Amino acid sequence: MTASLLEQLIEAFRVLPGVGQKTAQRMAYHVLEREREGGVRLSKVLGEAMERIGHCARCRDFSEAELCATCASPSRDTHLLCAVESPADRMAIEQATGYRGLYFVLQGRLSPLDGIGPRELGLEQLAERLSEDQVRELIIATNPTVEGEATAHYLAQLARQRGVRPSRLAHGVPLGGELEYVDRGTLSHAFGSRSEMYD
Amino acid sequence: MTASLLEQLIEAFRVLPGVGQKTAQRMAYHVLEREREGGVRLSKVLGEAMERIGHCARCRDFSEAELCATCASPSRDTHLLCAVESPADRMAIEQATGYRGLYFVLQGRLSPLDGIGPRELGLEQLAERLSEDQVRELIIATNPTVEGEATAHYLAQLARQRGVRPSRLAHGVPLGGELEYVDRGTLSHAFGSRSEMYD
Ligand SMILES: [Zn+2]
Ligand SMILES: [Zn+2]
Repeated sequence: MTASLLEQLIEAFRVLPGVGQKTAQRMAYHVLEREREGGVRLSKVLGEAMERIGHCARCRDFSEAELCATCASPSRDTHLLCAVESPADRMAIEQATGYRGLYFVLQGRLSPLDGIGPRELGLEQLAERLSEDQVRELIIATNPTVEGEATAHYLAQLARQRGVRPSRLAHGVPLGGELEYVDRGTLSHAFGSRSEMYD
Repeated sequence: MTASLLEQLIEAFRVLPGVGQKTAQRMAYHVLEREREGGVRLSKVLGEAMERIGHCARCRDFSEAELCATCASPSRDTHLLCAVESPADRMAIEQATGYRGLYFVLQGRLSPLDGIGPRELGLEQLAERLSEDQVRELIIATNPTVEGEATAHYLAQLARQRGVRPSRLAHGVPLGGELEYVDRGTLSHAFGSRSEMYD
């Protein structure tokens, strides 16, 4: 017997993070009973997003255009570049701090065992920007995990070799934690008291 | 400035129950980074479901066909009818118990202050079934809330007037609780030891 459309819908919701069978059921019933319009809108926007959202050619963040809004903006400070692991980390910094510089989204961290090296993180592209652009400081905001720290050291070297000053977020971000889940106050403080990196 | 597609996607996810800004962000990033295929499938199935899932003409449960699979099945016991408030309650009973009779989904409970009366719950249709069909027992599985109890008493009268024996789930479902969230064991036990209703 083929699964009913309702069963297919419940199954499809399970693609979302943290959504098990029970929650997926609640979601399906909720949109069917009370949110038909919202369900239609979610279906449309999600379909469009899956098709049209790619990566910014300059910073590798998600973008529907060739350049994301931040990279295309004339009002950002081009002397500052902030490297983050993920788009979620970028958004966390953008929302918590007053940072007005630019970003570079690694879309991961160095992890040789998983086959993630400099190429996968777009470090050639980052190196070019550090060489050609007016960047004076590279703010390295990778996560304070073992791999995130290793990535930070690699990026710091990359910066120094090109005459760019590397810096790292201040203590305040809990060790082993994920940047994305740090509260705004802590993140804002850590961002403000970032320190220069030495060997 | 128009909202970006990503911002629209985050906003659209908030239509789901229990999903705030932070969770909506995580969902959007998750499908974009790791689940493009799953995202496309969810978009399609959700769109189809919003368009095609209506109500079964016989039991008022969700159904994409004129009759739902349960009502259309030749192997269900037509002497038993179970009235529930919502499709979620119907599914909870179906999954937790060995019940093989039919259902009637009220899609609500009597609530005069909210303008929900017998007409809104399809009680005319239910009365017809109790009169015409071979139903011998009406198992009333409304929630043990004040309104659910009032609805149960109304349904019990409706049944008695038509020579059908009304019964109610046994104690075991916690008072004030929602059927949908009761664990399977408790629900199965309560269903099995349902008792006849008297005035
Ligand atoms: Zn960009
Ligand atoms: Zn039906």
